[in-house]
Amino acid sequence: MNPFATIPEQQLSSLGETELIRRIKSWLGDANPPEPHGIGDDCSVLPLVPSCQQLVTTDPVIYGKHFDDSLSPEQAAAKLLKRNVSDIAAMGGVPKYATVALALDSRVSIDWINRFYLALAANARSFDLRIVGGDISSAENFLGVFLTLIGQTLPNTRPLLRTGATENAHLYVTGSLGGTRIQKHHTFTPRVAEGQWLASNPLCLACTDLSDGLGKDLHNLLSPNLATTIDCSQLPISADAHTTAKQSGKPPLYHVFNDGEDFELLFAIDPSADIDSFEAAWSRDLSTPLHRIGKLVARTDPDAAPILLQNAPDSLTLSGYEHLR
Amino acid sequence: MNPFATIPEQQLSSLGETELIRRIKSWLGDANPPEPHGIGDDCSVLPLVPSCQQLVTTDPVIYGKHFDDSLSPEQAAAKLLKRNVSDIAAMGGVPKYATVALALDSRVSIDWINRFYLALAANARSFDLRIVGGDISSAENFLGVFLTLIGQTLPNTRPLLRTGATENAHLYVTGSLGGTRIQKHHTFTPRVAEGQWLASNPLCLACTDLSDGLGKDLHNLLSPNLATTIDCSQLPISADAHTTAKQSGKPPLYHVFNDGEDFELLFAIDPSADIDSFEAAWSRDLSTPLHRIGKLVARTDPDAAPILLQNAPDSLTLSGYEHLR
Repeated sequence: MNPFATIPEQQLSSLGETELIRRIKSWLGDANPPEPHGIGDDCSVLPLVPSCQQLVTTDPVIYGKHFDDSLSPEQAAAKLLKRNVSDIAAMGGVPKYATVALALDSRVSIDWINRFYLALAANARSFDLRIVGGDISSAENFLGVFLTLIGQTLPNTRPLLRTGATENAHLYVTGSLGGTRIQKHHTFTPRVAEGQWLASNPLCLACTDLSDGLGKDLHNLLSPNLATTIDCSQLPISADAHTTAKQSGKPPLYHVFNDGEDFELLFAIDPSADIDSFEAAWSRDLSTPLHRIGKLVARTDPDAAPILLQNAPDSLTLSGYEHLR
Repeated sequence: MNPFATIPEQQLSSLGETELIRRIKSWLGDANPPEPHGIGDDCSVLPLVPSCQQLVTTDPVIYGKHFDDSLSPEQAAAKLLKRNVSDIAAMGGVPKYATVALALDSRVSIDWINRFYLALAANARSFDLRIVGGDISSAENFLGVFLTLIGQTLPNTRPLLRTGATENAHLYVTGSLGGTRIQKHHTFTPRVAEGQWLASNPLCLACTDLSDGLGKDLHNLLSPNLATTIDCSQLPISADAHTTAKQSGKPPLYHVFNDGEDFELLFAIDPSADIDSFEAAWSRDLSTPLHRIGKLVARTDPDAAPILLQNAPDSLTLSGYEHLR
């Protein structure tokens, strides 16, 4: 859906900011707590935090970049909330409070914003988190929604970091990868339960979510002393990666490594673990598919490629999504 | 300074995102704490919070809207940080942790971003707050920086809310008002010490900061049962309001009520207070000028104007800054 209206009465300019804020509160309903804990004061006041660590992340959706006319406002709202929740999931945390800064042209349609906020509220309720504040700024020929999400670790549980993996650690991914542009980039399920399960399991040494593509995000678990070998025959190739490959003429694995926006978890398990019983425990508690795709290895030559592929097609190149190019 | 570069080697596109993030960390220096408490993981991990309430606010600066080529990157960075700090100040809080989401065209100059981040770090240090995370997204023909600031109330101290004022409460403003476009919109000092002083003083019933102009922001302290009388002869008119009035042909008070971006505090003091001793205590502890500008009164007719002006010039109109019009 095109977010811009041509008829003046359908544009936000016909409301003005004060009335728009009033409507946003109404659209959010109980997803926006009563003042001062929600929208309405100079700051929102968050309730007293139990003794756990807090997590904070920020990600936007920008028209023309993260969504276009092929997405409905409901789909754009779901993508915005879930891509932030995915970052909390990658830390093993619980999403709690979000602020939403709108920057938009006054010609954006009231209907688009109405549907966007109703969907944002529905998604917030589904994760039991609250929209506690925000800002509205006008910006010519632009529509971007910038969300900041505050979460908490589970009580008495550490956050899952990217750092901490060791030589010989086993590498796993959840779900399947690639071809995300067909629909997964907005229909995905953030791996919240899986992240919390891993944070509670001392065998998990490090974790990240796959947002820019395996070929780029793998680097986040490495270090100057640590490289990785990936067995390409073990990578979970999504059906959409096969479909995309038919259109692109590239091998499906190209899309597994480079498409980005998978929002699956990539994590490292202690090399001393009994992996059969680890995988059995996962399957007992969780229904999400799990694949062991390789391991971490010592990096002796700092100039050598840190990602070593086994069983890879000849034509495979790794990049991942690089912003600003 | 125009933030866009025409020579490709001077544009962010020549760096790419990975190198830009590396440089941002370097530019921020110790204003960005070490991982996992700063930039680098899926979320930043905030240290355990002592038992105080948390405050959160979000405000951007957008090129063409909040700043233009007449501001240096240092001035734009100062404005961004300070306008968020002003919201924490209005609650009587202590600013602590900020995330910074960049949305920008890849033709923005490396030099502009370099200077912007160095200044952001310097301002963060001056308020003893940390930049703990962020995001970078490309957006065509756009430059916006979206900051979310987390703060805390002082230990065992309530947050100052907009609600809570009563009939006959005395209304005060700090500093002087109007003409802010000349320079105050980026040179102002957020009233952090003043807000904390008020939060610790039980006589203060309600408080807000003046961002959209007195004529609009006064409404934030009112309620369906509460109106206000303002004695225009007591309003602190800034020298810049007089200068602006000479150019606009409007009375200086027009600019006091309508210019916005004053970032002064507007607050209500308990009607039973001994105002002479209240003002003496203020002057003993703080050097910021204080003016008693009116009081809150019962609102009997809900259709009557809620702001009653005494000693006003005939030609005065009230609006304040209305976004999205």
